[in-house]
Order: sequence, then structure tokens, then C-alpha cells
Amino acid sequence: MQPVARVSTCYPDKFGAPRQSGLVPDARARLVFEPPFRHPDAVRGLEGFSHLWLVWVFSENVDKGWSPTVRPPRLGGNVRMGVFATRAPFRPNPIGLSAVRLERVELHPLDGPVLHLSGVDLVDGTPILDIKPYVPLADCIPEASEGFTAVPYERLDVEIPESFGDSMSPEERSALEDTLSLDPRPQYQDDPERVYGLLFSGWEVKFKVEGKRLCVLSLERRRSGSGL
Amino acid sequence: MQPVARVSTCYPDKFGAPRQSGLVPDARARLVFEPPFRHPDAVRGLEGFSHLWLVWVFSENVDKGWSPTVRPPRLGGNVRMGVFATRAPFRPNPIGLSAVRLERVELHPLDGPVLHLSGVDLVDGTPILDIKPYVPLADCIPEASEGFTAVPYERLDVEIPESFGDSMSPEERSALEDTLSLDPRPQYQDDPERVYGLLFSGWEVKFKVEGKRLCVLSLERRRSGSGL
Repeated sequence: MQPVARVSTCYPDKFGAPRQSGLVPDARARLVFEPPFRHPDAVRGLEGFSHLWLVWVFSENVDKGWSPTVRPPRLGGNVRMGVFATRAPFRPNPIGLSAVRLERVELHPLDGPVLHLSGVDLVDGTPILDIKPYVPLADCIPEASEGFTAVPYERLDVEIPESFGDSMSPEERSALEDTLSLDPRPQYQDDPERVYGLLFSGWEVKFKVEGKRLCVLSLERRRSGSGL
Repeated sequence: MQPVARVSTCYPDKFGAPRQSGLVPDARARLVFEPPFRHPDAVRGLEGFSHLWLVWVFSENVDKGWSPTVRPPRLGGNVRMGVFATRAPFRPNPIGLSAVRLERVELHPLDGPVLHLSGVDLVDGTPILDIKPYVPLADCIPEASEGFTAVPYERLDVEIPESFGDSMSPEERSALEDTLSLDPRPQYQDDPERVYGLLFSGWEVKFKVEGKRLCVLSLERRRSGSGL
């Protein structure tokens, strides 16, 4: 198995990256093929599909082994479930699976065919093993029962002072708000005085959480951006 | 990457196996974990989900390489599409992806936890790399556009003389009918005199096709069955 592509995303770290695809609709990504797979022909017809499957590698966890049980954050982090009943990263084969939206296919003069994606849950630089079209007939199962994932997502109310987001695009701001609303804090941390830092698309974001309210304290440029 | 499990299915050969999961709802499978992964704990909580993702290996194609374009059978076999716009087996990393129904989890005295599945599109013996719960929130996208897969499946009318199916269970018979209705013949073959043979769950099935009508000519036991 070798990566066929890599993605650039707004999440330089695992901290803050959504735990499922689609949770942050404006989380954009740029997928660039590795040179041996950089054929415009290899993506012919892909533009007819609105959504794709990405099969990818939990690259930050490859050498950390696996465990028969894990503690899903959705259950508060204190209930153990079987690793195959979860999407946790520490699995026997560190394969991730995400359904993402295909915004457009670009033919780039240097990078070859580039896929512009949204709704991603991937850390910047994630290696991609395969790309497949989303086929509603086989993949969309509305009657599927949700198991323990039926716990509803309780989103936080996010406050970003107007003046902070001046140089952000509306999409970038929306993606940051959705990202923060998912509550990136580790389980069991509930100190309203604690300041957390999160890297997002070239910004360092500092925030506090009190109850269901997340306040952004500062937004500072850290690098020139992810080039999306 | 090493297989975590293998499946026993009613399709000993690629010929006749459905091209997507869910097309033959009664196509059953039995998934048995490889010894290092045979922990009842590793599937704890899985029984709460009605559907699963299987990430598997196109094991019959592993050494055959890949091609930037392929000819999907859905398009009559004469239009080339990019390999990443299809689910064709000859891909850079020979990974398959199937959403299947979880009928039940058995704790077998010798084999450990065994998953009983249906709606499978897998050849008998397929190695499984990963098992993940189907999470409707992230995986079910009813608004997804279908690309070239929007071509409707035209099923054949299948005739199995009553006397042939006597020792088949109703489910097995239903799975065979659905399998044949999908028209397993290679593209471009339309000779009403030609007799085709297909192996299905321990039976050798012979049939002819004239127009939209498939007639089963004989059904003979070939082996003791797949042990499902």
C-alpha cells in the first residue's frame, strides 16, 4: 500500500479536527496526487459525483498499536467499546474512512488534477490510500440504526469578537465557528479559567469555555496559511 | 496491513458476485476473525448497529497492477472512466469498500466472535482489513448525486423450475434469483443458445438468457456447502 495523494487542510493538529466528516461543512481541503498517480485520466468522470469516499491512513497513530477496546469521546470517555464498534484511530490496520463533498476538479499546471473538497475531518498532510465515488444506491442507508452514536451532538455557542475575524473569509470563519462548537477540549476538563490554544488554517486561536459558551480570546496569524 | 478476518460467502468465484453491496439482500456471509484479533471484547457494542463497513482486499487482483482508466460494466463496457471515478478492482491500492447488514454476532466456541452478515458482494475467502460501524450521521448522504452510476439496473426475469430448488432454503433461493437477475454474463455476449455455468453456495447453476429472460437449466450439488 502506498499513498496515492495527500490533503492540505485547515487542521494542522489532531486537536480540533472534527471526529467525523460532514460535521464542519466549510472545512475545505485540497487533494494533490503523488507523482505516479498524477494522471488527469485517472479522475475522468469524477466531477459527476457530488461526494467521494476517502480511504486514508491514521498517519499519527501508525506505530502506536491497537487495543481490543477503546473509550469513545461520544460516550464521555468513560465507557469501553470494542475497537471494531468504533471509528477510533488505534485499530489493527490504521485505516480511516470519510465521506466528503467534491467541490470541483482543477487541472493545475504543476500539481496535475487537484480535488477541492469540503466537509473534511482530516489533519493536514494525511496520506490518502484510495478515492472512490459515493454511490447512493449502495452507500446511503437511511434505515441504519445508530448504535451508541445515537447520542446527539451538543454544540457549544461560539463567540468570536467581530474585530478578530477581519481577515478571514466568511467560509473560513464559518468553519472555525463549527469547529469550535464541537468542543475540542479533552474529556473531563471543565475549568472556566483555563485558556486553550488551537491551530486552525494558519491562525492560533485562544479560547475559554464556561458552561455551553465558548469565547475566543485572541486570533493571531501563525503562518502564511495552508494554501487552500 | 494484515487481514483481521476472512468471510465465507455464497460466491466461490468472481463470476456472479454482485458488483455492489445491498443488491442481493439475502446474500449471506459469515465473518471469522484471524486468531490475533479473535477477542469478544473487540466487537463489544457492535450489535447496536444494523449495518457495517467492511474494508477489504481485492485479493484476486492484487498482483495485476492498475490502469488510469477502466471500462465500467454499468456503461456497457465501452466507455472509459478514471479509475478513481469507479469502484473497479484494478486500482493503485486494491481496497474494496462495502456497506453490509449485520444480522447477529455469535460467540462461537472455536472461532470466537463470528459476524453474520447479509447483502454482501464479496467472493468467498476475501480478506478483511477493517470493520467499522455504519454511522448514518456521517455516512448517509441522500442528496449525493450519482454520476454515471445513475444508469438504472435493468434486472432479468429469472425462471428456476420448481423442482430444482427443493433442497434450497427460501433465503438461498431468493439470493440465487437476485444474483442471476443482475445478469452475470460478460458484456457483449448475447447468444440465446449459449449455456453459462455459475457456482453459487455449493451448487453449479447452468442457465441461458434470451432477451430479458434467464432460464435455469440445471442445479447440481458441487460441494458440501459454504457452511453459512
